[in-house]
Amino acid sequence: MPKKILRINMTDKKATYEDVPEKWSRWAGRALTSAITFDEVEPTCHPLGPNNKLVIAPGWVTGTPAAPSSGRTSFGGKSPLTGGIKEANAGGLSGQKIAKLGLAAIILEGHPKDGKWYTLVLNRNGVEFKDAAPLMGKGMYEIDEILGKTYPNTAIIGIGQAGEMKLSNAGISVNDSENHPGRYAGRGGMGAVMGVRGVKAIVVDDTGGPGVEIADKETFEAGRKKLTEAILSHDLTKKGGGLPSYGTAILVNIINEAGGLPTRNFSTGQFEGAAKISGEAIAEVIEQRCQGADSEGTMGHACHPGCIIKCSNVYPDESGKHLVSCVEYETAWALGANCGIDDLDYVAQMTRECNDVGLDTIEAGNTIAVAMEGGLLEFGDGAGALNLFDEVRKGTPLGRIIGQGVEATAKAFGVYRVPTVKGQSMPAYEPRAIKGIGVTYATTPMGADHTAGYTIAPEIAGVGGKVDPLTDEGKADLSLTFQAATAFIDSTGYCLFIAFPILDIATGWAGMAETVAGVTGMAVTGDDVVPMGKEILKMERLFNEQAGFTSERDRIPEFMREEALPPHNVTWTITNEELDQVYSWVHNGS
Amino acid sequence: MPKKILRINMTDKKATYEDVPEKWSRWAGRALTSAITFDEVEPTCHPLGPNNKLVIAPGWVTGTPAAPSSGRTSFGGKSPLTGGIKEANAGGLSGQKIAKLGLAAIILEGHPKDGKWYTLVLNRNGVEFKDAAPLMGKGMYEIDEILGKTYPNTAIIGIGQAGEMKLSNAGISVNDSENHPGRYAGRGGMGAVMGVRGVKAIVVDDTGGPGVEIADKETFEAGRKKLTEAILSHDLTKKGGGLPSYGTAILVNIINEAGGLPTRNFSTGQFEGAAKISGEAIAEVIEQRCQGADSEGTMGHACHPGCIIKCSNVYPDESGKHLVSCVEYETAWALGANCGIDDLDYVAQMTRECNDVGLDTIEAGNTIAVAMEGGLLEFGDGAGALNLFDEVRKGTPLGRIIGQGVEATAKAFGVYRVPTVKGQSMPAYEPRAIKGIGVTYATTPMGADHTAGYTIAPEIAGVGGKVDPLTDEGKADLSLTFQAATAFIDSTGYCLFIAFPILDIATGWAGMAETVAGVTGMAVTGDDVVPMGKEILKMERLFNEQAGFTSERDRIPEFMREEALPPHNVTWTITNEELDQVYSWVHNGS
Repeated sequence: MPKKILRINMTDKKATYEDVPEKWSRWAGRALTSAITFDEVEPTCHPLGPNNKLVIAPGWVTGTPAAPSSGRTSFGGKSPLTGGIKEANAGGLSGQKIAKLGLAAIILEGHPKDGKWYTLVLNRNGVEFKDAAPLMGKGMYEIDEILGKTYPNTAIIGIGQAGEMKLSNAGISVNDSENHPGRYAGRGGMGAVMGVRGVKAIVVDDTGGPGVEIADKETFEAGRKKLTEAILSHDLTKKGGGLPSYGTAILVNIINEAGGLPTRNFSTGQFEGAAKISGEAIAEVIEQRCQGADSEGTMGHACHPGCIIKCSNVYPDESGKHLVSCVEYETAWALGANCGIDDLDYVAQMTRECNDVGLDTIEAGNTIAVAMEGGLLEFGDGAGALNLFDEVRKGTPLGRIIGQGVEATAKAFGVYRVPTVKGQSMPAYEPRAIKGIGVTYATTPMGADHTAGYTIAPEIAGVGGKVDPLTDEGKADLSLTFQAATAFIDSTGYCLFIAFPILDIATGWAGMAETVAGVTGMAVTGDDVVPMGKEILKMERLFNEQAGFTSERDRIPEFMREEALPPHNVTWTITNEELDQVYSWVHNGS
Repeated sequence: MPKKILRINMTDKKATYEDVPEKWSRWAGRALTSAITFDEVEPTCHPLGPNNKLVIAPGWVTGTPAAPSSGRTSFGGKSPLTGGIKEANAGGLSGQKIAKLGLAAIILEGHPKDGKWYTLVLNRNGVEFKDAAPLMGKGMYEIDEILGKTYPNTAIIGIGQAGEMKLSNAGISVNDSENHPGRYAGRGGMGAVMGVRGVKAIVVDDTGGPGVEIADKETFEAGRKKLTEAILSHDLTKKGGGLPSYGTAILVNIINEAGGLPTRNFSTGQFEGAAKISGEAIAEVIEQRCQGADSEGTMGHACHPGCIIKCSNVYPDESGKHLVSCVEYETAWALGANCGIDDLDYVAQMTRECNDVGLDTIEAGNTIAVAMEGGLLEFGDGAGALNLFDEVRKGTPLGRIIGQGVEATAKAFGVYRVPTVKGQSMPAYEPRAIKGIGVTYATTPMGADHTAGYTIAPEIAGVGGKVDPLTDEGKADLSLTFQAATAFIDSTGYCLFIAFPILDIATGWAGMAETVAGVTGMAVTGDDVVPMGKEILKMERLFNEQAGFTSERDRIPEFMREEALPPHNVTWTITNEELDQVYSWVHNGS
């Protein structure tokens, strides 16, 4: 049975199942959310207005049996944070269950004229519109618990208080296998786009669903094996490798050593407390606190069923019980180094608060750092920082500033050093010290985003080649290639971390493409990855152009061109002309 | 003696007097602030960063003896509110005194690296950099009083607490003849640009200054007479005419009658309480409260020496004493009708609060209305609205939201109906009901601004012709002509209200041009007004383009295209193509 588009109109509470039109038939995941946004959302519309939409789509291979680490769900639309197109993707349970219900995508549009809030329950029979009153004002931990009792073994997509308030840094939560809300389509404020629609939560029950058809089982199976082998043989992803052993936070010491760990609102590239918030330190905390049989803290946790990398962790409280899943590199950096905080327990508690009220951790950490620079708190004040999340929860004016993210907070506190591109704040890699990632921040249609073109692989990890992070040369081309490949991977449903093995192991790259070919029946090979990725980027770029974005939006902030970053004492030196080369092909052909 | 440019660098506390370079020699007032901003400010710089500048320039004829109503001062730079170029001009004492010191413009640049604040004292001997510590944290009423004692008979340019906090709606205050702070370069947040420079106040003492040279006295005198006669014979501006008798608030009933008075955050075009906040009502309050010999309330107040229109007023408290000068049409509307408030005393008190903490009244009123729509207060809650200014004064988080203006407040409270263009909120004319002014809002480089091209003259007042406000036809051309003529008038130093008489009386128009020709020695005639105005607009438009503005920024908000406005039940219907025509000449020649 071919997949359907489920269109849910919240104005008249109507759900319709539509055939996937020809123009979208090649796409899934990010490619599909971007195609639908490009085709159906007026680029100049107000992100919080009635004409924006929230599009949810699993990847091509999501929901298939045993495609490794392939459970990602893409959430797309026009971003309240950037004003441009947005795709944010999450792990957790949603992608596989949506796919198994036979859905290519869910389009959420309109909004209830009566101002009411709804929980949507999706199952094989259709969509139920339930009154969300019992959930209103609640955070995601409580929501997942409540809904998990009524609807066990379902995926729960939801928004915390930040999304209810339509704040620009509101993310969308997805529950994991333990029914915790730590999987986030965090970036770009898509939780506000869901909130505007009057939807507090979406429950996906795939019981009895048709499942995902595989057009060419042989090709799929061959590809799956190659990809699995690549993942399980690469140093970073194999059992006992870097990611399973220490999680993504293994990068804290590495990036700090490279002088590229943004510290105290991007004022230096090294944090004296880095070791205390590193992956190694997290492993030590788990080791110390989780000796008992009923301990819950662990490394090597899977963010969704079927993941064979398992870079997630469960960070334990003092008694060894689940505090939050998970403390990642970005989290440890954003809520740690960038705020001058070197206490992992504060970092973990703040991460839990982000997951509960529904905020992107990267933007939240940057926001606190900017507020610290603006004089609200001292750098390093973990207790003060932690309190801010309660302000968001309560919807106080301070919480409404913080919940809007970096640019709003910088304005409120008169701060000029604002580490954003297109209104979205930078992740944990200093563009002055690692130039390629700066090109990605500057030029991706998503706003500053490391996952949009992760040049850290060659620049720092020596994966997919080895490139000097401090040199400007060749970084425009490098970033574009990574951006294109990423757009493809974000459409597969695979976790982006398969990139490490497949960049180094050619059969893995081919295998990934074969699984897509196998599921869809399209003639996709490894050679199609970058060209197809560019097709996706082109839609996104054109959307932004039509929204009024020009090359002036593809810039690293002024202060990074003027202030030299210790310890390398480097400024941002890649020219505007080079940045403008990255997307010149959109209008010049090829 | 030819005029000089005074360049004050706050980084090294250095003041230098420079010859006016050839490229700026034709310009004064707005033309000069825009030319300097265009030439010296990087369009993509951060408005609150070290590379923005504050440029202050009196008009061509400002400071001459007896050019009527010619005391305006232009303040320019890159706007923290719009991100584009900005000129805001004010009455009061500054323009004439700066001009009489022999200055064409003051360029304020850099900022004290030690974070200190300064009062700059300008006199014929140069610039003194005084420690502003005694003024910090104070509002403008107290500042004018303190500085007025030390420096009597000087012009005082200053910022309130909002400017200290670098909030995006911080205006720049200029004192009037009674040393009150009610004259504001309000729009666009230029007070924050002054605050970033570490300048709390500028005192201008013109004692012994060289005065303004007149190149051709005969021509000047002939022009001055024609212009004066025109002003004194037109119904709106003559003694006993509309403006002197009732002030600008004479428009409240007129625009309400036309269905174009934006009410309760632009949700209808008529306010049932309009009569209670009208010019006629203000006159009645003055009449009732100011019978005593020591009463201070009055109509027919001059905002600067030498004004012969005198549309300002002094609104009295219950004992007849000065409460605020003045309650204008825009004030009465923004803090009245648009917030659903029909109590003039609340309007007057809030106006005083704006003048004290240093906020633009138009943006402040719109901000409160948006906050009301977002649920912070009920529409009509005068006491609640008044309290908000104390929040700004204290720098509370709520105050920092409100002090940033409409867009920041809309984001904080999740409001989609945001009546802004280019980030600046609309004045007191509903674009759906009066289409020409909507074209001005949409297309002027300044962001939504009625003074940038006041088509209300022909659309409502029947001045300069008579045009149906509700028709779309011809409005693009009409707006452009008004925008160009306005750019010229804003450069003369004349109050924009001379436009009423000179649009109807051809000799007045010619006379205005002759006074410019007389002062400067340039061959300027009435025929040059529009072409020269277009030269000014072109610089402004190009600055914005280089800052990344596209035609998508020249748009009326989405909700006005979708919601029909009572009582005419009209939407915004002028097409994007028509809007894009207005400035097509910038790149197409002519």
